[in-house]
Amino acid sequence: MDSIEKLSSAAQDYLSRVAKEAEAKFDEHLPPVTDRPCRLHEAMRYSMFAGGKRLRPGLAKAAFDMFGGKGDKIWLATSALEMLHTFSLIHDDLPCVDNDDFRRGKPTSHKKFGEATAVMAGDALCIQAFELMGRAGNAKAIEVLARLLGTYGMIGGEMTDIECEGKEVNLEIVDYIHYHKTAALIEASLLVGALLAGASEGDMEIIRNYGKSIGLAFQIVDDILDIVSTTEELGKDAGSDIEKGKATYPSIVGLEKSRERAKELYEESIRALDALPYDTQILRAIAAFIITRVK
Amino acid sequence: MDSIEKLSSAAQDYLSRVAKEAEAKFDEHLPPVTDRPCRLHEAMRYSMFAGGKRLRPGLAKAAFDMFGGKGDKIWLATSALEMLHTFSLIHDDLPCVDNDDFRRGKPTSHKKFGEATAVMAGDALCIQAFELMGRAGNAKAIEVLARLLGTYGMIGGEMTDIECEGKEVNLEIVDYIHYHKTAALIEASLLVGALLAGASEGDMEIIRNYGKSIGLAFQIVDDILDIVSTTEELGKDAGSDIEKGKATYPSIVGLEKSRERAKELYEESIRALDALPYDTQILRAIAAFIITRVK
Repeated sequence: MDSIEKLSSAAQDYLSRVAKEAEAKFDEHLPPVTDRPCRLHEAMRYSMFAGGKRLRPGLAKAAFDMFGGKGDKIWLATSALEMLHTFSLIHDDLPCVDNDDFRRGKPTSHKKFGEATAVMAGDALCIQAFELMGRAGNAKAIEVLARLLGTYGMIGGEMTDIECEGKEVNLEIVDYIHYHKTAALIEASLLVGALLAGASEGDMEIIRNYGKSIGLAFQIVDDILDIVSTTEELGKDAGSDIEKGKATYPSIVGLEKSRERAKELYEESIRALDALPYDTQILRAIAAFIITRVK
Repeated sequence: MDSIEKLSSAAQDYLSRVAKEAEAKFDEHLPPVTDRPCRLHEAMRYSMFAGGKRLRPGLAKAAFDMFGGKGDKIWLATSALEMLHTFSLIHDDLPCVDNDDFRRGKPTSHKKFGEATAVMAGDALCIQAFELMGRAGNAKAIEVLARLLGTYGMIGGEMTDIECEGKEVNLEIVDYIHYHKTAALIEASLLVGALLAGASEGDMEIIRNYGKSIGLAFQIVDDILDIVSTTEELGKDAGSDIEKGKATYPSIVGLEKSRERAKELYEESIRALDALPYDTQILRAIAAFIITRVK
């Protein structure tokens, strides 16, 4: 069996390859800056092309391929998923929400374009994502995606995260926040890929469990990196969770136990994949990458 | 032929009837305030139940029925359309956008719940709307709706409206703003109803033209009412367009010519309906209501 480091490296190669193709599609799926309202289109593109691992497109593509999906429609979904992720980042960074000035080493949308444009750019990316999902032609995938994005998913996690700032919280609440804020969209990415490929209900359930585990692991690692990394490494303010009184894993159970929990979740995700009669190599590698990543 | 006043009165009866049924469905389609995140669910409900004519649900239902639609799925769409309208109002009212304190005689979302919750409540309503549309099961309707909501539709109009505040604009720009900001979602409501009923391409084109005409007329009447009404009648600040230097019809062509244009658009909308071999009585009545309404 390959070492976790070797798996992680394979995942990075895979994600880079998908990112390249997905980014070419972003360009096609985003309105041109020459069309009115030009500045809004510029703001949408600015945040979409600010870099990032393109993890959600990578997961959607991996699930789609694993379940035998055919054709080009997956690229509509990869653009939609990255747009939805970017929309959430733009709105989270707003002065009235997290008030962050930098993201991926660049000024945040509202610092660059002003608050009104940032609000609208987020809205526009969210809507554009659903237009692309409509074009992909699978209404069930839209329902599942929206459910995991809304108040029982990502938005619910973000809202609770904001409400809990500076408050005493327990592990149950941090789990709720982390699962909803981060894992839900990761889970949705896998499910959308699976649905577009026509996966069975049973397979969907398995991939959902894998997604929950790696999604939660992803956020715990994020919390750890916020403490142990420098601002330069992260491209955003290191230590900002503590400064803002954010509810994090390490703040409740400490760094060591947080690392153990991430490792356990990794193992759970691999066990989930064991039940699938397909080539799960890429998803195994991505799980390894998620718990070993340093930014 | 019925007088325009009689038609308008019939339309109000129709809209009230649909509103009652649609509002019962809003309650079903909105998350309960007892579910986490409670305050966000409260904010979503607060704005959704702040009143309003429920014009978009009324138009969707009228188109659905006219084209022979069957079953309950239209009520998923009527909830979705009102959620999308409400989402746009919440974000437009934000301090960084239009900075409005009152809407329909009540404090705006951010005045009542704070800015962060208002941003998230808008986002959540937008996402919830697409979940419901996903449940309605027609991916084409989602694509068409999102297109008319996004930067080539409503959001494009809002953004241009913000950018033009206090600037010298011509009629072409005001037409662009009005069509996109207001008419696009009105047109979308009719098209969604038509698509869910299985209307033909040709019928869709006709209903689209009707929608464009009444949508533009609706916004011109809005501009006129902002000048001639009192704050109490409107439930929001009268005269606020002038105060904010908004691009409006009367500010460019004057009140009288604005009224004439609204009348012309009304006539165009009726001519569009003449081409349809269905019972267009309700849509005729709604057009009459739109140009005769006083709030």
